[in-house]
Amino acid sequence: MPATDPDDPSRPVTISYIAQTAGVSVPTVSKVINGRPGVAADTRARVEALINAYGYRKSSSPSRSNLMELVFPAVESLWGVEIIRGVQRAARQHQLGLVLTEFGPDGSSIRYWIDDTLTRRPACVVNVAQLTEQERELLRAKDIPFVVFDPTHELDDDVAFVGATNWAGGRSATRHLIQLGHRRIAMISGPDQVLLFRARFDGYRSAMEGAGLPVEPALVARAEMSQEDGHAAARRLLARPDRPTAIFAGNDLVAFGVYQAAREAGLRIPADLSVVGFDDLPVTALMDPPLTTVHQPLAEMAVAATEMALALGRGERLAQVGVELATTLTVRGSTARPPA
Amino acid sequence: MPATDPDDPSRPVTISYIAQTAGVSVPTVSKVINGRPGVAADTRARVEALINAYGYRKSSSPSRSNLMELVFPAVESLWGVEIIRGVQRAARQHQLGLVLTEFGPDGSSIRYWIDDTLTRRPACVVNVAQLTEQERELLRAKDIPFVVFDPTHELDDDVAFVGATNWAGGRSATRHLIQLGHRRIAMISGPDQVLLFRARFDGYRSAMEGAGLPVEPALVARAEMSQEDGHAAARRLLARPDRPTAIFAGNDLVAFGVYQAAREAGLRIPADLSVVGFDDLPVTALMDPPLTTVHQPLAEMAVAATEMALALGRGERLAQVGVELATTLTVRGSTARPPA
Repeated sequence: MPATDPDDPSRPVTISYIAQTAGVSVPTVSKVINGRPGVAADTRARVEALINAYGYRKSSSPSRSNLMELVFPAVESLWGVEIIRGVQRAARQHQLGLVLTEFGPDGSSIRYWIDDTLTRRPACVVNVAQLTEQERELLRAKDIPFVVFDPTHELDDDVAFVGATNWAGGRSATRHLIQLGHRRIAMISGPDQVLLFRARFDGYRSAMEGAGLPVEPALVARAEMSQEDGHAAARRLLARPDRPTAIFAGNDLVAFGVYQAAREAGLRIPADLSVVGFDDLPVTALMDPPLTTVHQPLAEMAVAATEMALALGRGERLAQVGVELATTLTVRGSTARPPA
Repeated sequence: MPATDPDDPSRPVTISYIAQTAGVSVPTVSKVINGRPGVAADTRARVEALINAYGYRKSSSPSRSNLMELVFPAVESLWGVEIIRGVQRAARQHQLGLVLTEFGPDGSSIRYWIDDTLTRRPACVVNVAQLTEQERELLRAKDIPFVVFDPTHELDDDVAFVGATNWAGGRSATRHLIQLGHRRIAMISGPDQVLLFRARFDGYRSAMEGAGLPVEPALVARAEMSQEDGHAAARRLLARPDRPTAIFAGNDLVAFGVYQAAREAGLRIPADLSVVGFDDLPVTALMDPPLTTVHQPLAEMAVAATEMALALGRGERLAQVGVELATTLTVRGSTARPPA
């Protein structure tokens, strides 16, 4: 029997009913119910009093649909498919239909999606779009399990995620260049506040320091991670009198921009300039020369994220709340010894 | 007016009446009506026959869900995203969730998908996977509207489709080369039984004939449309003593293979060899040199297919049962005058 309002027994006590009565938001009530932090003590006390007064119980296992959800901020042309295929493969194994949502450039459809998802009651959500803490709280309130894919920002300790070993990948890319004999190694890195770019940069720095090489500020560029940005940043690096003999690009798109800048500067890859990327997009093998890059196992990460989210949905305790799958360096034709 | 038993018009047809008549439980009938799983196929068929015979209508909610479906044989890395984004954009406009399915290499999940889709009762299906006539019949039987995306084979006259002007595209690619002064123009075409490749080839032939140029069988290669096949076919063409000065590739992947073969043969693009592709995948602009190619408006085609399918679902008559959206030639750096 669901709890009902003692003054009006026809009215079931839901989370939103408690929220309304307490004069707080639904996420706040959910936080109290789920014993999560971030609620002022007096608010918590007020909500708990109402929960006790009404005898509200989290419904034990609401029936979930045989759908699962995958949400993107934007489906990137070059790596979106890898993720989609991985999730799709795992969903098929569990005989779940896959609902795919893209929030679009302005994120305007997040609100619709939240509403739709709460009513669809999917088996789980794989969340490339990250979402805000408040949005995640709405999912928790409805007992919809989710896993964050490739976190861009710090998460609370109890938020499940699947990522890649970005730090180790940045380190191995840089060590590969050092082992070839490079000393002046530049890096084009992404915005520092995006966790995965920071990890890649820290891997670069760690490898440089480990080899006793200085990290010269002039050789570290910051860029948004598009081809155009990579092109502009590489142009500046290559115009320096003491130009680098190798560039580690924070992702493959940036590496494509480096190719472009090298071509314009009349530099041959890898004879005059070595280039390493990060991601191993399917197109890197088509480049001329084929790109040496850090392989990020996107499809496997997608499968792992789906399996974790479904395990959470079955009420299982995860052995690890977060997992980083190993990156591996794929050596192709864009790296060689530095010019003599 | 609720439906009534034809043998006893005073008796309204309720769920329990259908259950009793079918010899099943009320929950079973409810599952069938609400499109939920867990009913044996023959039972479901029996119940549905009764529902149809009595003209039973669920009183409150519409028969179709607020989902739509997009089905792929396989989500191709390079062009799948364009289609997904187009369909997703149209779905969002209509506040529909998008269920995405990939049948996988062996097509083994087609059967599951058909069953799931029939129970999900989506608003419509955009069908990149083509499906067999029999499978399409199953959708029709359930009144699930669908549109075939980029038909690979002849369809019956009443099957709605959205394609691209493949013939006109093949013609404009070839005329571009002729106008640059090329005479020995090879084509690497796809399997003749795939309609869109045949149309592209016929466009090539039409342009050649229009300019009074012979279509030399030795300069027409047939290949599967992968990069590897393009590479192999181009190698053979470029090894000929009377090698072509230009190659029209049946798609962009094949053009990438042509680039590879040209590089290996020491031929510069476009100085020694002009290359035109077909599709205008996002990566073509990244190639060195950027590829001249026939732009196929995949995202717009996807939007059009979705809108058509939804119009069918609203019971509207389509002005045209099939539509081909115009291709346009995108001239980049891979075409030039033939070598003197």
